[in-house]
Amino acid sequence: MPEDLEADTIRILISTDNHVGYGERDPIRKDDSWRTFDEIMKLAKAQDVDMVLLGGDLFHENKPSRKSMYQVMRTLRRYCLGMKPCELQFLSDAADVFEGAFQTVNYEDPDINISIPVFSIHGNHDDPSGDGHFCSLDLLQVAGLVNYFGRVPEADNIHVKPVLFQKGRSKLALYGISNVRDERMFRTFRDNKVRFYRPGQQKEEFFNLLTVHQNHYAHTPTSYLPENMLPDYMDLVVWGHEHECLIDPQKNVETGFHVIQPGSSVATSLVPGEAVTKQVAILNIVGKEFQIEKIPLKTVRPFVTREIVLSQDRRFKGLDKKPDNRADITKRLMVVVDEMIEEANAQWLAIHEDDEEDDEEEQPLPLIRLKVEYTAPEGCEYEVENPQRFSNRFAGKVANQNDVVYFYRKKKSGGTRKGKADQKANPLADAADSFEGSEAVRVDKLVQDFMAQQNLKILPQAPFGNAVNQFVSKDDKHAVEMFVMDSLTTQVKGLLSLDDDAVTEGLDAHIAGFRKVMEKNYVEGESQQTRRRMRFKPKPSGWDSDIDGHWMEQPNAIEEAPPSPELASRKRTAASRAADSDEDDDLFGESPAPPPAKATTRKRAAPAKTVAKKAPAKKAPARGRPKKGANPFIDDEDEDMVMEDDDDDLPAPKRAPAAKPAARATRAAAASKTKQTTLNFSQSQTQKPAAKKAQKAIEISDDEISDDAFESMPTTRSRRR
Amino acid sequence: MPEDLEADTIRILISTDNHVGYGERDPIRKDDSWRTFDEIMKLAKAQDVDMVLLGGDLFHENKPSRKSMYQVMRTLRRYCLGMKPCELQFLSDAADVFEGAFQTVNYEDPDINISIPVFSIHGNHDDPSGDGHFCSLDLLQVAGLVNYFGRVPEADNIHVKPVLFQKGRSKLALYGISNVRDERMFRTFRDNKVRFYRPGQQKEEFFNLLTVHQNHYAHTPTSYLPENMLPDYMDLVVWGHEHECLIDPQKNVETGFHVIQPGSSVATSLVPGEAVTKQVAILNIVGKEFQIEKIPLKTVRPFVTREIVLSQDRRFKGLDKKPDNRADITKRLMVVVDEMIEEANAQWLAIHEDDEEDDEEEQPLPLIRLKVEYTAPEGCEYEVENPQRFSNRFAGKVANQNDVVYFYRKKKSGGTRKGKADQKANPLADAADSFEGSEAVRVDKLVQDFMAQQNLKILPQAPFGNAVNQFVSKDDKHAVEMFVMDSLTTQVKGLLSLDDDAVTEGLDAHIAGFRKVMEKNYVEGESQQTRRRMRFKPKPSGWDSDIDGHWMEQPNAIEEAPPSPELASRKRTAASRAADSDEDDDLFGESPAPPPAKATTRKRAAPAKTVAKKAPAKKAPARGRPKKGANPFIDDEDEDMVMEDDDDDLPAPKRAPAAKPAARATRAAAASKTKQTTLNFSQSQTQKPAAKKAQKAIEISDDEISDDAFESMPTTRSRRR
Repeated sequence: MPEDLEADTIRILISTDNHVGYGERDPIRKDDSWRTFDEIMKLAKAQDVDMVLLGGDLFHENKPSRKSMYQVMRTLRRYCLGMKPCELQFLSDAADVFEGAFQTVNYEDPDINISIPVFSIHGNHDDPSGDGHFCSLDLLQVAGLVNYFGRVPEADNIHVKPVLFQKGRSKLALYGISNVRDERMFRTFRDNKVRFYRPGQQKEEFFNLLTVHQNHYAHTPTSYLPENMLPDYMDLVVWGHEHECLIDPQKNVETGFHVIQPGSSVATSLVPGEAVTKQVAILNIVGKEFQIEKIPLKTVRPFVTREIVLSQDRRFKGLDKKPDNRADITKRLMVVVDEMIEEANAQWLAIHEDDEEDDEEEQPLPLIRLKVEYTAPEGCEYEVENPQRFSNRFAGKVANQNDVVYFYRKKKSGGTRKGKADQKANPLADAADSFEGSEAVRVDKLVQDFMAQQNLKILPQAPFGNAVNQFVSKDDKHAVEMFVMDSLTTQVKGLLSLDDDAVTEGLDAHIAGFRKVMEKNYVEGESQQTRRRMRFKPKPSGWDSDIDGHWMEQPNAIEEAPPSPELASRKRTAASRAADSDEDDDLFGESPAPPPAKATTRKRAAPAKTVAKKAPAKKAPARGRPKKGANPFIDDEDEDMVMEDDDDDLPAPKRAPAAKPAARATRAAAASKTKQTTLNFSQSQTQKPAAKKAQKAIEISDDEISDDAFESMPTTRSRRR
Repeated sequence: MPEDLEADTIRILISTDNHVGYGERDPIRKDDSWRTFDEIMKLAKAQDVDMVLLGGDLFHENKPSRKSMYQVMRTLRRYCLGMKPCELQFLSDAADVFEGAFQTVNYEDPDINISIPVFSIHGNHDDPSGDGHFCSLDLLQVAGLVNYFGRVPEADNIHVKPVLFQKGRSKLALYGISNVRDERMFRTFRDNKVRFYRPGQQKEEFFNLLTVHQNHYAHTPTSYLPENMLPDYMDLVVWGHEHECLIDPQKNVETGFHVIQPGSSVATSLVPGEAVTKQVAILNIVGKEFQIEKIPLKTVRPFVTREIVLSQDRRFKGLDKKPDNRADITKRLMVVVDEMIEEANAQWLAIHEDDEEDDEEEQPLPLIRLKVEYTAPEGCEYEVENPQRFSNRFAGKVANQNDVVYFYRKKKSGGTRKGKADQKANPLADAADSFEGSEAVRVDKLVQDFMAQQNLKILPQAPFGNAVNQFVSKDDKHAVEMFVMDSLTTQVKGLLSLDDDAVTEGLDAHIAGFRKVMEKNYVEGESQQTRRRMRFKPKPSGWDSDIDGHWMEQPNAIEEAPPSPELASRKRTAASRAADSDEDDDLFGESPAPPPAKATTRKRAAPAKTVAKKAPAKKAPARGRPKKGANPFIDDEDEDMVMEDDDDDLPAPKRAPAAKPAARATRAAAASKTKQTTLNFSQSQTQKPAAKKAQKAIEISDDEISDDAFESMPTTRSRRR
């Protein structure tokens, strides 16, 4: 690449669904996931990229094992740190796009030398959960190893603010939306509660890159994210969650943007999608143009899958009419599997033929999956071996010696489409194979079915379901304990507050009443944490229950305790805990009414921004944000938004005059802490109530801040030697 | 302090048993542990210390919650990182004293600016466990936030190598021994299997500081670490594990060294020891002299505890003879508790009276524990209220509203000593109060009792106990699953290998046989991990079980699989997994025979060392170690050791001539990676078979490397601005 072009090229290594920790207890495959993640980060360094973008599910487990966490940290520290400065100019107000204890982009931290910053959203496997609503990416961020962006504090009201970069003449607006359960995400988009922000200046010059982690295809009509719900002005969408590697950008003719689906870097199920060659992409952006380099991953265990139908396969011709055909079928199937093993080994060799001698690795055992339909014609029969026993024949030759083969029969009465028939014949096995999120779905279903048959007397139903799901899918071992303690405490304290008459009349009605109150509190979006803050007032010092009766009988014995400082500091996140969880409304009905959408409202919501022309001293004297007035370059800006009625089908952006509210001035002042000029956002909103509607986003720029302010930004990056 | 003295003073903040995560689900106390840890690290920065030394149990849980880990990382990143360089010169070969992916001291990493390095051993709460034998400190170390030293790869064979530092004319040898179960540690010391190393040059000039995390007092004759088992040449021993703050150095007249026991920084039980004012120490070392500054911690929740005996307390005089005295006793006890609350609040105010206005914190609710003996004289009775009900009277005034009071009676027939009588009357409650390791002890006991009553037919007993303990005390949720899978696999494969006759004769004997083999393998110190590597050879390609019979019947069908690269790289640690666990021999007997001790042997064990006179370029070109020959300053050194017979009572050191073996030359070369001169070790050994014996350590120095090499070392520290 010519040097001047190189100076304008933003190079991004893109990978998703690394699933570190997958199969870590498998004796053969246990190191696969982290070894490939290590290869990817090593590639990033060798390829001298400006950043790495991860599309979610870095970890397979919500609570990764120490080994998984250790391996990821080791890899990040090894390849991300270094003396070569990152050449990307950071244009955002970091406090606007990052949360947590250190609201900075890691490569601007004067105390850590980051050469290759990693930016990541969370996926459905590594999403926040538990006390404090932390996720694994929070740990990596607080350690300075990852920039966790695209958080979704409220699943019903999503603000998508881009992280802004510049390198030479190329400008990048990096958008991210971390995973939200698909039905919920669909509804939030449908209800126009997803707001996309755009740079306040020169927005047409930015290359707009969006990362999502959702179903890409319609499992049900509302359990996926349709591409055309996303803003048309995106240039490229990186799609996480789907494991099939579709590395070549596909143009969406309706919206005009391209979509790239890098797929997982480790096969987590034995379906054909996972057998596609695993690759990562290096995205080169120059101005508004982009180009993709594809790099096949070399550490990935080869995987070959085939489907055969015995009655239609010439190699099995005539066997159906032969009695006792089991041994014959087994022998011929073994030939097929041996062919597949050879094919897999050839694949490995092909991808490694250019290896340097010292790069040479031992050839790993391949993954093999043969799917066999053994429906026989009327009156005949195929006898097949026990699948595990058949599979064990390949011990030492394959990595998955227990599930090489999968036998199934068409149901006699069924649809004509083979796929559909399968689904019916083997609902569980096939569902498990169909997509990787299936496990959680089945837990939901189980809880729902069970709850439907219960008649709970003391415990409230909806929070019960939530607690069970937290326990199962998020490994939150205290979820059920806390739920039971909370509920019983409420019941007991309620009962203690009753007078003697109530006791005489029977307690059942009261117990039911308390339970209903708990249900109601839950449905109204009160999180467990919020409910736990309810406490009983201290008894007056003179009070003695023996003498004065139960203090709890007093009507004013209960108060809402003030939140602790810790709780308050993370309040925005914590409040969304219940709202964010997967089952709070769909399982048990009665979600809160959505706020009125599409009304022509004017509201003051977004923070004011700052343009600082000079970078401050290399080391900020304190972590705290400087007080307002310390920075002469503060220019408050209103980000009021006009949301238009639905009857306007024109996508033309409108401009709103800027006002100067004093609100959130301290936040604006925070920008003076960062060392570079920050840009302002205007706000747009996708207003596509259904999948087929044209975009009606309203984009507002602030003309009061001239483009000059932007153009004259210093382009040098302060960095210690 | 005068400037020249300051340049020679090594300042170390010392803290132990921070127990971050203790009580994190308590609605009131949940933030106590990490807030105090944050205060300690903030103090370290304010006090401008050269390092922080932690004595183990940084975390309360073996698998800390994400919140606990997040808070610790946040605190470390906030206070340890900074532009001010650490003034300690690092004299060790880092690969000699650290393990893990980055064998460096964190403040020498050119990519992380560490101002205040933290050095920590692990305690009994946060020790390594699970797959790969990682612990929480491994994560902090791989993130560059902590220097985890004093690991114990083999509990039966401990090598204690000091980390060596210099500042001005003061030299520090920092020794650490991470926690090993006390009985095991006692035995290892008793058997002379603990070897202490000393600097090869100028060892008399070093201040020798040792950190341990063991019982300090004799719960049983062998369940603690007697001070006089430690080498006499120590200058100061920092004792972790015990929670009572004994911050003033106590001189051991027998050994001559001082001992400081900083205690926990959060009360984890309501015993008098935890009520002692919590303080940290700042240790100032100049040459061989030291001095301690004591700093009371301000965030610690005040805690007041008292014991009263109703029959001997004037405030309760005469009540024993009054019928229905419950209300009276309750009222008078409430007066006592109210006094205690006042006392606690006064304590808080006293410690905070000098606070700056903006430091002011809300006064926290105190911890109160009143222990009441209500044994009444013959013929009389004291009626006491339900303790929880009594405690609840102080809701809103105390932090522990459920256990303010603890009632007990002396057993009628009992010893004369009150303490002993208590123990008998309330063995469980008192045992729980007595020391913080009690929980694990009881789990051990339960498993032992249960196992003793079982007659296991298929599963091996000792590994079963180990798995249960891993599950309970280390939160290793897969321990039992893996154990059962392993055992059943071995059984099934064994059974499959039997011939038909054996089947006809009955399987019980064979099953018992396989179980015995598993028991034996376990007792012989094979870890689970090692056993899992046993696998069955692949069947020859022409083999068909249907035709040729079971492959497993072949005598050569089982092989020992080669360890994976990952396993091999951590082999030293993994191999000690079984050896290190708490229950492998004491619960089930039959430990491996200890290797012969005190024999006059000459063996070649220790690595060769390096003295590099020049620091290499600031950034090493690669992470790998340079090949031998790249550094002209390599000087191989033999560390052969002479261990003398026990009949020599003189502690006089002997010197052995140095040889120059080529062994482990690559390791020696590794020193050229570090930027500073390294020192060599000689080796000494404590040879105190019993507590009362004098030290017979043999100290060997290498005279071939002149002291000049050491004296001429560059004292400037390479560091980027």
